Amino acid sequence: MARAGTLETGRGRVPTPLFMPVATHGAVKALLHEDVEQLGFSMLICNTYHLAVRPGIDVIRGMGGLHKFIGWPGLIATDSGGFQVFSLAKLREVDDTGVSFRSHVDGEIHRFTPENVVEMQEKLGSDVAMVLDVCSRADAPPGEILQALERTTEWAKRARGARKSLPGGLFGIIQGGTDHELRRRSSAEITAVGFDGYAIGGLSVGEGKPEMLSSLDVTTPLLPAGAPRYLMGVGEPGDVLEAIGRGVDMFDCVFPTRVARNGLALTWGGRLVVRNAPAAGEDGPIDPACKCTACTRYGRAYLRHLIRAKEMMGMRLLSLHNLAFMRDMMEAAREAILAGRYDEFRRERLKAWRPGPETL
Amino acid sequence: MARAGTLETGRGRVPTPLFMPVATHGAVKALLHEDVEQLGFSMLICNTYHLAVRPGIDVIRGMGGLHKFIGWPGLIATDSGGFQVFSLAKLREVDDTGVSFRSHVDGEIHRFTPENVVEMQEKLGSDVAMVLDVCSRADAPPGEILQALERTTEWAKRARGARKSLPGGLFGIIQGGTDHELRRRSSAEITAVGFDGYAIGGLSVGEGKPEMLSSLDVTTPLLPAGAPRYLMGVGEPGDVLEAIGRGVDMFDCVFPTRVARNGLALTWGGRLVVRNAPAAGEDGPIDPACKCTACTRYGRAYLRHLIRAKEMMGMRLLSLHNLAFMRDMMEAAREAILAGRYDEFRRERLKAWRPGPETL
Repeated sequence: MARAGTLETGRGRVPTPLFMPVATHGAVKALLHEDVEQLGFSMLICNTYHLAVRPGIDVIRGMGGLHKFIGWPGLIATDSGGFQVFSLAKLREVDDTGVSFRSHVDGEIHRFTPENVVEMQEKLGSDVAMVLDVCSRADAPPGEILQALERTTEWAKRARGARKSLPGGLFGIIQGGTDHELRRRSSAEITAVGFDGYAIGGLSVGEGKPEMLSSLDVTTPLLPAGAPRYLMGVGEPGDVLEAIGRGVDMFDCVFPTRVARNGLALTWGGRLVVRNAPAAGEDGPIDPACKCTACTRYGRAYLRHLIRAKEMMGMRLLSLHNLAFMRDMMEAAREAILAGRYDEFRRERLKAWRPGPETL
Repeated sequence: MARAGTLETGRGRVPTPLFMPVATHGAVKALLHEDVEQLGFSMLICNTYHLAVRPGIDVIRGMGGLHKFIGWPGLIATDSGGFQVFSLAKLREVDDTGVSFRSHVDGEIHRFTPENVVEMQEKLGSDVAMVLDVCSRADAPPGEILQALERTTEWAKRARGARKSLPGGLFGIIQGGTDHELRRRSSAEITAVGFDGYAIGGLSVGEGKPEMLSSLDVTTPLLPAGAPRYLMGVGEPGDVLEAIGRGVDMFDCVFPTRVARNGLALTWGGRLVVRNAPAAGEDGPIDPACKCTACTRYGRAYLRHLIRAKEMMGMRLLSLHNLAFMRDMMEAAREAILAGRYDEFRRERLKAWRPGPETL
């Protein structure tokens, strides 16, 4: 099922499997664009909800669009903000035509509809835009998951109809929780509407790993082979390896940079809890094989000191390292797919990737 | 009185007037060493108190010294920690032979003496070390300021006697508050002990600017012409310009990086409060004449957005800009001194440097 492809957008192409660093507010946490470029990433994902709340979509449009506003000439995907509306916003009221909510930043009232969320992403100039979907919690009652699925389909049709000038692609989003029948139904309905690519939403939201993987098992075979498949919010290395093996092409997740800021480094020898005491007497790099800035110049003891002293330099070095790890993993996965040995690669890597303390 | 000189250390030389970025725990806040190097700074100042408290002087010595531990091959000055013991530590007990205190980090009890503070800086491998001094508050009663002065002189003698292998220079510290007679007495006593350079302590601690400048007026003429003079903790651009004009060679201060993290940019058109609303509609750089990363790639509106969203990228870009400003100012001051027109330069710059809102 694993695929090595090319994501084509109006502004450029990028090889898959692809990991997109998360730049929620238009910046990857703890890094400069210069860092992200030097790491070799050519596509970020930003968030329509966060940008609508602050500084406002029209402010960004007035500056010439999102690429110009944030000074990033590469590719930009934008999430519709559906997930954020349903997880962050206050006093949320959903009806058939959209959702009204209060911003978590300043309490201002916003209304998102399938139509205006497409329009917002057109104003931003997204290279890959997402339709507005309805997200339900992993532990929501079956009726709520079904209603979210049905609304997501209706909204997908309306979003498709609203598309005007979107320069990049528009992706539909599959919902249905971990119920295999609902996943199949959503896949059929969303692909029937027809989009440039398909995102798989509503996973990695608290369900177990077996449920996530079996939901993927029933979903990806129903998606058209010629369109990119994007598993939203997944970025734990083991999950990514499993999902690539199930035919997923695109990923985004705050995991690598969030755990970095808490002092956890990703290595193929396992997770390294840099802030813990054992690192104090060790002065070697996090990973002697890694060529990133953190590993070529700085030792574990100093990184541990920086993390404990809450110095941003430590958060930044570990963020650089963890994104270098993700980049290397995606490149190695692509090579393994092209060489016809992905399953072997996946099994080897998963064996080496021993989950350490899950405290972060 | 303004001097353009060269600070010579065992490991290298650096032109003066000199501004040292502050790396309290061994890192300049919000920046990587790579940033600081690219800005052109060749000397940091770290803090003996903070490094003794965490990770511990012997840990750093075990790693091969401070340069090796933090991965900075350039020059490093270290403050003795006197100021920090008297401002940060808890349950402080001072007697004639030293000071005992509890660490502000973990409550552990430490004892600093004039002798062991020299030894600590020898273990660190400081290129420029400071003697342990006794700091009194700007509003302390005259008796307390006098006692601090007398202890500082006694401790300076003991520190001088304790010096063994210090590879770099050892600086004495002048105290005496804002009382001109006490400043003259401290200058005479400390220069009589004899050091490689002289630091002026106990200023910029809450006294007014006129008091600070008149204290400098009576102090610097009493210091030997061949030794470097270092005004501790001063870095507000107007103060630096005035102090250079009074014969000071070296400066350090968290001001440029601290205000950067709060959204204030230093420019010769004045202070620019980037986080304020007026910047929202402006998309030009902070300073069109500045060649730093922030000014060459990013607009004010985006920087304002990053600061408001508390993104580290914004803190880092403004820190880069403000340190580039300090570097440019020190270089321009040196050129003006060498050209024999420093007084004119100082007056022009002070006129352009209109203090904005003093809220940061």
